Amino acid sequence: MKNPLTERVEGQLSHRGERQLIQDISAWLGPCSIPAPYGIGDDAAVVDNSDVTQVIAKDSLVLNKHFDSQTNPAQVGAKLLKRNLSDFAAMGASPGYALVAAFLPKSTTVDWLRGFYTGLRDCCMQYHVKIIGGDLSSTFEDLAFSLTLIGSGNEKLLTRKSANPGDTLWVTGSLGGSIQGKHLDFTPRLEEGQWLSNTGHITSAIDLSDGLATDLKNLCPEGCIIELDTDSIPLSDACQSMAKNSDRNAIDHALTDGEDYELLFTLKKSFNSQEFSAKWEANLKTNLTCIGKLDIMRDNSMNPIRYFGSSKNFSGQGYEHY
Amino acid sequence: MKNPLTERVEGQLSHRGERQLIQDISAWLGPCSIPAPYGIGDDAAVVDNSDVTQVIAKDSLVLNKHFDSQTNPAQVGAKLLKRNLSDFAAMGASPGYALVAAFLPKSTTVDWLRGFYTGLRDCCMQYHVKIIGGDLSSTFEDLAFSLTLIGSGNEKLLTRKSANPGDTLWVTGSLGGSIQGKHLDFTPRLEEGQWLSNTGHITSAIDLSDGLATDLKNLCPEGCIIELDTDSIPLSDACQSMAKNSDRNAIDHALTDGEDYELLFTLKKSFNSQEFSAKWEANLKTNLTCIGKLDIMRDNSMNPIRYFGSSKNFSGQGYEHY
Repeated sequence: MKNPLTERVEGQLSHRGERQLIQDISAWLGPCSIPAPYGIGDDAAVVDNSDVTQVIAKDSLVLNKHFDSQTNPAQVGAKLLKRNLSDFAAMGASPGYALVAAFLPKSTTVDWLRGFYTGLRDCCMQYHVKIIGGDLSSTFEDLAFSLTLIGSGNEKLLTRKSANPGDTLWVTGSLGGSIQGKHLDFTPRLEEGQWLSNTGHITSAIDLSDGLATDLKNLCPEGCIIELDTDSIPLSDACQSMAKNSDRNAIDHALTDGEDYELLFTLKKSFNSQEFSAKWEANLKTNLTCIGKLDIMRDNSMNPIRYFGSSKNFSGQGYEHY
Repeated sequence: MKNPLTERVEGQLSHRGERQLIQDISAWLGPCSIPAPYGIGDDAAVVDNSDVTQVIAKDSLVLNKHFDSQTNPAQVGAKLLKRNLSDFAAMGASPGYALVAAFLPKSTTVDWLRGFYTGLRDCCMQYHVKIIGGDLSSTFEDLAFSLTLIGSGNEKLLTRKSANPGDTLWVTGSLGGSIQGKHLDFTPRLEEGQWLSNTGHITSAIDLSDGLATDLKNLCPEGCIIELDTDSIPLSDACQSMAKNSDRNAIDHALTDGEDYELLFTLKKSFNSQEFSAKWEANLKTNLTCIGKLDIMRDNSMNPIRYFGSSKNFSGQGYEHY
């Protein structure tokens, strides 16, 4: 099969030179790249500060982990930004500026890279993000990117591990089977995250990137347990179709498949669930489901995540990077 | 030869798990890592802003490009930060916070990684930098790091390409032969950069990372030429010893060897050179040399860099990443 990443030796980076490549990238990024010293072209980028609280995320992509050589490079560029936007959504923050580090084998083609940066540009335009800098490094085998996203939040920023016993647990959208396409073609829940932050009723939040079973642990504070009703987990169509062709059921997929990019959050126990659902539906189109609640951990030897419903004996875990 | 990066299979990352690894890294970083949401542990990091101008740099390291498997991992960690500090020096900026992305093959050992992060920590302590976040990704072959450094500057920030005809050209320290050791064991010229910025007499600056011959081009503004006296270039001892064992002379090494991490800058033509040298010596210990000046480009077909002195026919170039 043709490999768009390296096909045509004369189109590879080794024939281009770094200075030319940086000029290419500035041109590909077009209006979402701004001139030095506020953008690409100097030793560092400069941002004129206002007096808001700043939020900074850093997330990466690696070939054959998060995309493959047949993936449309424009979708790879967009995914790099959207993974970081999903982190911003989980804090209720607003994006502003980005820096991109590219690690590229010399065999990478300029065509592929143009596709990547123009895809990144289009996604930046959509979310009003400016690219202010970055870095190019040559590698031997692996092709990877790291993006740093800088933006702002208000005093009601959503954090992890700040829920309390009695709070209810909620998830946006539907889960599982992301590998069938959603891992590239997803909408970061920025609008939802900012709305949640502004209600003042949300006690904690996280975005689902490593699978519900793993990310639940990252949300659960010390001294708490999470009681999860596995039958209430919203299952995606992809998840149900995958379950038909695998030895795992749909709930298992929804608990362990990574890259959902949905929000998982907790609502103050004092706030009525039905009232909250109605308020959500009046403001947002995305599906919302209550899937459990938090309780006090009464015995330190207890597993902090307790499963109820038809998958109550679930003992798997989400994606492990190592 | 033993490979400290992968030696002992049972010490490799694949036996550790990501959550444990993130806890390890927080512990290794010790006091230079601060708790979430201001540091490691949430979807993004939060910085409370003051009303100064913000400066952001992003620079990377790749195994077998910038260090090898025999390099002390603590020196690798320090080098990652110092490369970025050198960019800050070139703008006269002050560092504050950093985020680190690590791209690691599963065969990397926890021992090596501990050495890396504790070396990074010690360097952070020295320069008063806090680590506020990062990202871990697994790769197949390459081991690489990308660091984003965030800090502040004042209204006199030094930039590239802002010099004028008649300005004099200066360089700190001595050049060439960095591969013999200085590329790991260097002092970023932060103090010098901040002092230069505060004088108000510096019209442009850059740090030397790709070799004088290449970085000169990055400093030279449109419509200008740089006249360089090759006999005045300060040659390092390493550069002179390398020239004895290579087919290139010492000046050639000083012009093309990368990773000097010295400052190259221009002084306003109205400011007397001898007076400036005296002022520098009264305030700073680092060696300083005037190596040339800028002039108007009278003919567009001219090479913007003109060499004088014994290497006047020099036609090489510095390090090319691609």
